[in-house]
Amino acid sequence: MVLYAIKGDFIWTEDPSSFKYSADSYLIVQDGRFLKFSSSCPDCPILDYSGHLIIPGLSDLHLHAPQYAFMGLYMDDELLKWLDEHTFPEEAKYRDLSYAEKAYSIFVSDLLKTPTSRLSVFGTIHTDATLMLINKLESAGFSGYCGKVNMDRNSPPFLTESTSESIEETYRYLESCRTVNMKPIVTPRFIPSCSDELLSELGRIAVKYVLPVQSHLDENLSEIEWVKSLMPEAESYTDAYLRMGLIGKTPSIMAHAVWVTDDEIPILRNSGTFIAHSPSSNYNLSSGIAPVRKLLSEGVNTGLGTDVAGGSSLSILSVVRDAIAVSKLRWRLVDDSFKPLTLSEAFYMASKGGGSFFGKTGSFEEGYDADFSVLDESDIATPLSVSLSLPERLEIYISRSSEKAVKAKSIKGKIVHCSHQKE
Amino acid sequence: MVLYAIKGDFIWTEDPSSFKYSADSYLIVQDGRFLKFSSSCPDCPILDYSGHLIIPGLSDLHLHAPQYAFMGLYMDDELLKWLDEHTFPEEAKYRDLSYAEKAYSIFVSDLLKTPTSRLSVFGTIHTDATLMLINKLESAGFSGYCGKVNMDRNSPPFLTESTSESIEETYRYLESCRTVNMKPIVTPRFIPSCSDELLSELGRIAVKYVLPVQSHLDENLSEIEWVKSLMPEAESYTDAYLRMGLIGKTPSIMAHAVWVTDDEIPILRNSGTFIAHSPSSNYNLSSGIAPVRKLLSEGVNTGLGTDVAGGSSLSILSVVRDAIAVSKLRWRLVDDSFKPLTLSEAFYMASKGGGSFFGKTGSFEEGYDADFSVLDESDIATPLSVSLSLPERLEIYISRSSEKAVKAKSIKGKIVHCSHQKE
Repeated sequence: MVLYAIKGDFIWTEDPSSFKYSADSYLIVQDGRFLKFSSSCPDCPILDYSGHLIIPGLSDLHLHAPQYAFMGLYMDDELLKWLDEHTFPEEAKYRDLSYAEKAYSIFVSDLLKTPTSRLSVFGTIHTDATLMLINKLESAGFSGYCGKVNMDRNSPPFLTESTSESIEETYRYLESCRTVNMKPIVTPRFIPSCSDELLSELGRIAVKYVLPVQSHLDENLSEIEWVKSLMPEAESYTDAYLRMGLIGKTPSIMAHAVWVTDDEIPILRNSGTFIAHSPSSNYNLSSGIAPVRKLLSEGVNTGLGTDVAGGSSLSILSVVRDAIAVSKLRWRLVDDSFKPLTLSEAFYMASKGGGSFFGKTGSFEEGYDADFSVLDESDIATPLSVSLSLPERLEIYISRSSEKAVKAKSIKGKIVHCSHQKE
Repeated sequence: MVLYAIKGDFIWTEDPSSFKYSADSYLIVQDGRFLKFSSSCPDCPILDYSGHLIIPGLSDLHLHAPQYAFMGLYMDDELLKWLDEHTFPEEAKYRDLSYAEKAYSIFVSDLLKTPTSRLSVFGTIHTDATLMLINKLESAGFSGYCGKVNMDRNSPPFLTESTSESIEETYRYLESCRTVNMKPIVTPRFIPSCSDELLSELGRIAVKYVLPVQSHLDENLSEIEWVKSLMPEAESYTDAYLRMGLIGKTPSIMAHAVWVTDDEIPILRNSGTFIAHSPSSNYNLSSGIAPVRKLLSEGVNTGLGTDVAGGSSLSILSVVRDAIAVSKLRWRLVDDSFKPLTLSEAFYMASKGGGSFFGKTGSFEEGYDADFSVLDESDIATPLSVSLSLPERLEIYISRSSEKAVKAKSIKGKIVHCSHQKE
């Protein structure tokens, strides 16, 4: 039995309505899981982060690892043009494993420095590069899902598989994965990139291998029109996935749902689909603002995703900030029947809420995986600092801190990143 | 005659439509002004920033120095509640000069590390604390305007002056200023905080001392209704300032203009008023999205402001990013007759455009003040970096860099900040 305690100022959300916090406390970790808080010093080794803010591990429900190379660039276009002119040519480079090695090393190294513990990530169509990615994430200590992308139509020849090749390579990917904490996930890019034959075969593979599914849904108005023309028999974009067996059979994550309709919401709720809300991507690509409060109030599982590189930050805490910001604009400009998100609600989506896709992560409750980050608040100077409450410290950190200000990070009880450069 | 050259990769905008750039070049500085570019090494001392991106000095047209203490906090409220519950109690602390000393030292020190060279800043109602602020900014090398705030109604007793006190203290402030580069500016907080008697006297003071004016305009719908009820004879919020002699007589900056009407635009254009666009403040306080493209196309002078602490970043480059982001949402969700802002347009607003309020700053053209920042790109890792163009490097820097990543900054030819910690 491995037993130790962490000491510091803990803050977390057990439900969306409010923060829980415990200053200057000990949190006992047993065999990679949180056991309980203690106000007095326990009789075991102590990781002493006294005076530092500690948050539970955060979950990034949607991002594209190969796009990290150009994150922050080419933001003057909408989705479909952006895919054709920038994203597809960049993703094509991952056929070259030496490029993949270089790019994925940077991606994993930078991701380690953020508070993200769990992720569901897209690779490219290239099986070998995606195996490299999943292995790098596993070695770095991450937990979650990584998918080889499927695309057999409507993409440039240099980034298109034949239907049979796409299916065969998916089998090869699944059978080559030897990882434990990072698992494969079925990853049709989106309806326009995959033929009906490919989509329905991927649905069968998900069921056969008991694998979750990730894709994109209702991101952009032109995309939705395109899906209608490609599958006119489907009643909606959601229904298109439902018909192909890609939602409702196994767990799934659908990114965006910016333009989700009232008809789609019950299907998403009843199938337990998780929506990955990516506000930064949605404004960068001029997509719109997803009706997040409505999805939550209708009982649809909703978490956050950076959507690198539609989104321009690798930190899910930037997404927390952006989710609140755009919810205020939606309330003011689009629909005042749903109030803006509060900080605790958005933080819950990034932690326990989105984390529930992966299991028991994102909270300091007993039995939860010992995923946590110790925040580095050292570059935030204010004359108020002595009198700030823990929720105020978290709020100011989320607003002001740079991307990578994490002193230490643990996933499943193991320290995977430690930075004491500033001490 | 003082003559030296800067070496590096220069990027700037002479008009909003596109970037100009010059890689691996020398820019000659003579007596605090830019003279000309040279591709070969000139016969004078060289500040060698080879390989580093150099941008012209940026201008922050609107921020509140005393609010920096709580920047990033209390963002769950709208404007009027936020003022009453958080802003006014914090500003009241500046009666205590020891608190002001501590807080303004942090503010000036942090601002030095950003690319801002010119600013128009609000202090508080307290003359002595505001004199301390303007002196600190002057000593640090900044250039621009700093105002003692006037408030004689509708604020709590601990932050309200009598009308005569407000006028007398304004005179005392103006007559006590001994600064050269940082100049005083007439600063009625906004119509709700100032009686007609005070406003019209401030208008007369501006004319008598030939001083510019700064205030707030059309930020929030409830605020606009309130102004209507306070000055029912005015045809609009803009007309209220016009009647009081606060626009049109001397140069002025009005922050926000989120809900500006078609009737107000010609008054703003004809009076040469500068609008300070503060997108981050406007979403944080659920105010809305200002019609910036419309203001620009109608010929209204429009620059950017951080609006610390309605805005939650001290860096005007964050505002560049946010201005583009919200312009896309406005285009998609509110009014598709005005296209989103491009990067060069938003950068122009932050540099030469907004800078024209202060004189010749914000460009590398001959005769412009030698205001520039050398950017620190060292924490941006991408496999693409060798092949990036200068505009791409600037775009990725604006998206990814942390707040303070400036290696060196010059204002009027004098190096005011230098950070080589990472080398």
